[in-house]
Amino acid sequence: MQKRLQIGILGLGVVGCGVVQILSQERQKIKEKTGVELVITKALVRPGEDKSALATAHNFQLVYDINDITADSDIDVVVEVMGKIHPANEFVTEALQKGKHVVTANKDLLAEKGTALVQTAIENHVSLYYEASVAGGIPILRVLANSFVADEITEVLGIINGTTNYMLTQMVEEGMSYEDALVKAQELGFAESDPKNDVDGIDAAYKTVILTRFAYGLDISLDDFVVKGIRGIELSDIELAQSLGYEVKLIGLTKKVGSGVFAEVAPALVPKHHPLASIRNEFNGVFVRSTGIGQSMYYGPGAGSLPTATSVVTDLAVIAENQSDNKPAPQFASYTAKKVFADPNEVFYRYFIALELPCEKVLWQEVQKLAEQFDLSYEVVADQEIAGKRRIVFLTKAINEVQKHQFVTSVNKMDASHVSQIMKVMEE
Amino acid sequence: MQKRLQIGILGLGVVGCGVVQILSQERQKIKEKTGVELVITKALVRPGEDKSALATAHNFQLVYDINDITADSDIDVVVEVMGKIHPANEFVTEALQKGKHVVTANKDLLAEKGTALVQTAIENHVSLYYEASVAGGIPILRVLANSFVADEITEVLGIINGTTNYMLTQMVEEGMSYEDALVKAQELGFAESDPKNDVDGIDAAYKTVILTRFAYGLDISLDDFVVKGIRGIELSDIELAQSLGYEVKLIGLTKKVGSGVFAEVAPALVPKHHPLASIRNEFNGVFVRSTGIGQSMYYGPGAGSLPTATSVVTDLAVIAENQSDNKPAPQFASYTAKKVFADPNEVFYRYFIALELPCEKVLWQEVQKLAEQFDLSYEVVADQEIAGKRRIVFLTKAINEVQKHQFVTSVNKMDASHVSQIMKVMEE
Repeated sequence: MQKRLQIGILGLGVVGCGVVQILSQERQKIKEKTGVELVITKALVRPGEDKSALATAHNFQLVYDINDITADSDIDVVVEVMGKIHPANEFVTEALQKGKHVVTANKDLLAEKGTALVQTAIENHVSLYYEASVAGGIPILRVLANSFVADEITEVLGIINGTTNYMLTQMVEEGMSYEDALVKAQELGFAESDPKNDVDGIDAAYKTVILTRFAYGLDISLDDFVVKGIRGIELSDIELAQSLGYEVKLIGLTKKVGSGVFAEVAPALVPKHHPLASIRNEFNGVFVRSTGIGQSMYYGPGAGSLPTATSVVTDLAVIAENQSDNKPAPQFASYTAKKVFADPNEVFYRYFIALELPCEKVLWQEVQKLAEQFDLSYEVVADQEIAGKRRIVFLTKAINEVQKHQFVTSVNKMDASHVSQIMKVMEE
Repeated sequence: MQKRLQIGILGLGVVGCGVVQILSQERQKIKEKTGVELVITKALVRPGEDKSALATAHNFQLVYDINDITADSDIDVVVEVMGKIHPANEFVTEALQKGKHVVTANKDLLAEKGTALVQTAIENHVSLYYEASVAGGIPILRVLANSFVADEITEVLGIINGTTNYMLTQMVEEGMSYEDALVKAQELGFAESDPKNDVDGIDAAYKTVILTRFAYGLDISLDDFVVKGIRGIELSDIELAQSLGYEVKLIGLTKKVGSGVFAEVAPALVPKHHPLASIRNEFNGVFVRSTGIGQSMYYGPGAGSLPTATSVVTDLAVIAENQSDNKPAPQFASYTAKKVFADPNEVFYRYFIALELPCEKVLWQEVQKLAEQFDLSYEVVADQEIAGKRRIVFLTKAINEVQKHQFVTSVNKMDASHVSQIMKVMEE
């Protein structure tokens, strides 16, 4: 059994510095628990980046060429906290191929290249852990991997993007507009480096891909599902939803029905008494529905230097613990299920639908006929005239994806009429 | 590596039957993940208890004498789901001594006899797991054991008794009295077999003992801390708290300060935006404050046949997984820290304090002098005359346990005056 693991860290940004700090604080405790000492020996930084004070304080070497780490046979574990897909993918692949365990916080990388990276890890008998990639400080991936082995997950609903949840909270609680909320989120540093990824749901989609793997052992990609962000959310829709007893949240959803898996990222209505409804500001929450446990939820910070770094160091501690086994390096989750998508006829949800149409009564009658044609029961919750147009909002009973699609398409084909907002309504 | 583990189960009540069912459903999945098949071969029932249909359906033998299980060298694992301390303690001890792993859902047993049982497990090189003993379906113990190794927990706040949380929710939402809420909880079967354990906080105290072990590696016992239930909670106090922006919850609290650990079970005020405030009805939630992650919370069902059984079978799956290691049987949590209690001068909380005193103005002036004497800042939030007595409620700034104790004792010594309610106020 190896008593000391040498670590090369790629990147010394906020998360990287957090890892250095947490590891320094927790080294002794981890050694007592696992018998293994974790030591950072090298850090890859960009030329010109001055991290010499940190390097000196923690006694590691700064390097500027990835080969100084991947070709160093003394390094056992590579921690990747650079972010983005390139060159992280090449660096991590190289590290795995050289027989080094890898810990990363990089959701983009794992969502886009996860299948190949996991395969590379298996082939090279090393572990690849990435707890920090979904919901930063919440130990959700390890919970799904370890604590649901005797359960069958049927639905995972995640508030997994802190920026958009912060914005929606501010819009509700402070009556702020979308634009003002975005500016405030950026000022506070909640926005990811590219705000588009947050507000358009792409960040949440990456995490939904990873959650789908851990929940169902199944690999999907961003092209396989609808991804919609919070652009175009009107304060008036949020207020109407509230008056009906709902909060509007950006939800990463992955559901299993008889025929297969259905995933989506989109704003949705969450009943006020649902545990996800109380997740405020930049916090994240992952709600799991399963046949054994029933309902459970995991809440915590979705980002931030220390929470993310803590998850990274926990992964390192697990690698340390595994050193005492003589079995092959464990993989984080085994996902071998074939990618089978749900039959859209089998995926049922209730909907909040807002229509805009000319004021002529006959047009609303036409919409009602379409609803009948597609077997859509509904209750009108708002009917207003705004600037010469009629705006009707209704809540439907549960309908499937096919009914929904046919109804929306048919309305949008009508003269000067369209569906201006459609959101799923989550079960209590 | 052993490919098949034989299980003897003690008790076929609701949880026991749930274990039989879940194990039957999940056997194949666990075998695929761990390479080990888990098979129940014997079940201990009381003489006269007719479980023959279940036994036949699942192909196990009913036995009426514990020795038929503990002396059976083919049995590798004992699952104890009888409840109560006796004879469960003797049976579990015997099983461990005979070299069998044990999984139990018994919080009373683990809280009262945990230290000795864990020692017996270590001496006999077997594992003792009890995930189901705290917050039934929430995988909180495994999360604390596995995902906080790189973190320092400073406070754990648990809503860990479903019966009392159900009662408090009904009192708030339906305006029900304490007595009516208790009857309704009993009708719905939420109450533990002895309702006293629930309403007097003893059940929550058992779980607080176990949470303290997992959070700080430290063994405390029920005699070491104040345990107060929800008896004597008045709807008027709850309504006043609500008007101030708080929910009243029965909280199992375990906190670490510089000098040591402080534990308590008592009703407390939880700010409406605190994640624990949204835990309704029979659900449980465990909130963890730590230096790395910051705030996290774990939510789910606190009891029930399937959730509890799922946690038991997860423990069995972990034992199956450990079979492939050649290291000593792992223990659930290592707790070796010495029991050191916090200096009461170092334990600070805000308080909600209700006083009853005669209407003479001079008496309230006397209370104010006491507050000054013990350096207690406060804000009066209610001041009423009821049936010739004056009732004053105030919220204090953070004070320590000594100040609180001195103030309460001094008020209670005054003529016809007393503190009729005192509850901690949790931080946002």
